[in-house]
Amino acid sequence: MRIVVLAGGIGGARFLRGLQQASPDADITVIGNTGDDIHLFGLKVCPDLDTVMYTLGGGINEEQGWGRTDETFHLKEELAAYGVGPEWFGLGDRDFATHIVRTQMLSAGFPLSAVTEALCDRWKPGVRLIPMSDDRVETHVAVTLPDSGERKVIHFQEYWVRLRASVAAEAVVPVGAEQSKPAPGVLEAIAEADVILFPPSNPVVSVGTILAVPGIREAIAEAGVPVVGLSPIVGDAPVRGMADKVLAAVGVESSAAAVAEHYGSGLLDGWLVDTVDASTVERVEAAGIRCRAVPLMMSDLDAAARMAAEALTLAEEVRGA
Amino acid sequence: MRIVVLAGGIGGARFLRGLQQASPDADITVIGNTGDDIHLFGLKVCPDLDTVMYTLGGGINEEQGWGRTDETFHLKEELAAYGVGPEWFGLGDRDFATHIVRTQMLSAGFPLSAVTEALCDRWKPGVRLIPMSDDRVETHVAVTLPDSGERKVIHFQEYWVRLRASVAAEAVVPVGAEQSKPAPGVLEAIAEADVILFPPSNPVVSVGTILAVPGIREAIAEAGVPVVGLSPIVGDAPVRGMADKVLAAVGVESSAAAVAEHYGSGLLDGWLVDTVDASTVERVEAAGIRCRAVPLMMSDLDAAARMAAEALTLAEEVRGA
Repeated sequence: MRIVVLAGGIGGARFLRGLQQASPDADITVIGNTGDDIHLFGLKVCPDLDTVMYTLGGGINEEQGWGRTDETFHLKEELAAYGVGPEWFGLGDRDFATHIVRTQMLSAGFPLSAVTEALCDRWKPGVRLIPMSDDRVETHVAVTLPDSGERKVIHFQEYWVRLRASVAAEAVVPVGAEQSKPAPGVLEAIAEADVILFPPSNPVVSVGTILAVPGIREAIAEAGVPVVGLSPIVGDAPVRGMADKVLAAVGVESSAAAVAEHYGSGLLDGWLVDTVDASTVERVEAAGIRCRAVPLMMSDLDAAARMAAEALTLAEEVRGA
Repeated sequence: MRIVVLAGGIGGARFLRGLQQASPDADITVIGNTGDDIHLFGLKVCPDLDTVMYTLGGGINEEQGWGRTDETFHLKEELAAYGVGPEWFGLGDRDFATHIVRTQMLSAGFPLSAVTEALCDRWKPGVRLIPMSDDRVETHVAVTLPDSGERKVIHFQEYWVRLRASVAAEAVVPVGAEQSKPAPGVLEAIAEADVILFPPSNPVVSVGTILAVPGIREAIAEAGVPVVGLSPIVGDAPVRGMADKVLAAVGVESSAAAVAEHYGSGLLDGWLVDTVDASTVERVEAAGIRCRAVPLMMSDLDAAARMAAEALTLAEEVRGA
């Protein structure tokens, strides 16, 4: 079975690990979000790609969900001693190596997709990991700074990591997306997929950014195979992160049903909500999307595997319908 | 008193620390060798400038004489895990920060001299450290590889660090030197100096490379102030490093007197040899260079300070002559 997964960072990576356990023989292609990529200290940092790579490759810091295990922060300390920032982005000594290798390869002329493949040669994540695009797309967020009242457009990472989404996101713009092209292999993988899954990643700044690359949304809608998603919202709060903040920016209420409606039945065939949201199943189905309520808390690998299995079961239901 | 010192790496840095102790009120300008600079992992590494900066700024690894104290090598481990080399150059996690800041500033358009000044803002070495040139000069060495018999021109660092000068240096070429210009401040410092010192740095690949920048040798010769050097050769062996290997490449025998003659009386007014070389004082003086035999082993800071004091004393003798 060929499965295509559109993945953001932590949620996507943990779901993928569950999917590998639930479907060990599946041929999995991951289309990774690069909208949260950022240039720091002259280096190209791809947080979501790296989180997927490190998580599936056994190098992730399990507690925090991002960054490397057995990590030290001496380089970062020294940058701070030089007065060179930003200090709010946590790059460890081991992690820096990934960004140095990536930057060096990009400077040598390799596209990000080829660089990602080369990095994965080491990590062997057990999936094919492709960035959504080789072109630069950077998600920016419009905010009003509370102290000065100044309206400012900042990089998504500054909003998410430095401000911790503590102010309202007035707009979320994937800068460069309109001019970007899917990376080599993305459309082919979608066209050849048996199932397409949206993990419980952020529907705006993770999955939404991938869908903003012209051609990807259309390819998924026209693939003719089940497209099943898992709600990142449980009850009225995001399972992880601050998805509600950016949902508001695109006018979507923070609920499992509203996210399904946001994707829409033109794209999504099936949707899993958590059991606490069982009452919204009817609303989702009324929108033309097959819906089931199952436990959606990825508390451990087995829980993630059960979620993945439920998503595949729902996909088969969709296919048989 | 305004003192200008032409410095290489470890020997130059340790001598400078002695000079600061011997002459605490002196206004010291260091013209640093950049011929051993190298691009590694897309980063600009300036080993000699950093050794001076770290040594005088209290950040040096005292035992090895280069690199940072309290250092870790996690980033380097990871680069090796990615299969990205070279592995033979020891860059630590803390040290990497210096190269990242430097590279970022250079990419932003600052010349190396301005970058070095900015880095020294943190380290406060107590001297003005200026690279010999803002232009790229890279010392290369012609060798015949023992296994294959292949004649090859390699970067000085590859010769020095990877091969540990285990094969003969057939030629030593400061590539780019002819087209280079002294960095801003270099010629001015020489013109305003009261004394100019050559520490016991390598006469070919350290001091020699600085002198290969057009204008520097001439400015020193015409400064009209005492120019005093200290022999890096004691007995018939270099005090440190492998200076004899590169002396052979320029046709100079490995002896204290031969190095003085190599600099020549047109450049050098005074020369210190070690007490074991007292018998060569006469030969050096016959070449028109005032010479004294004093202990030249920089075994500790006090020994370095005594050597610096002897150099200043000899300079005053030259001035009075």
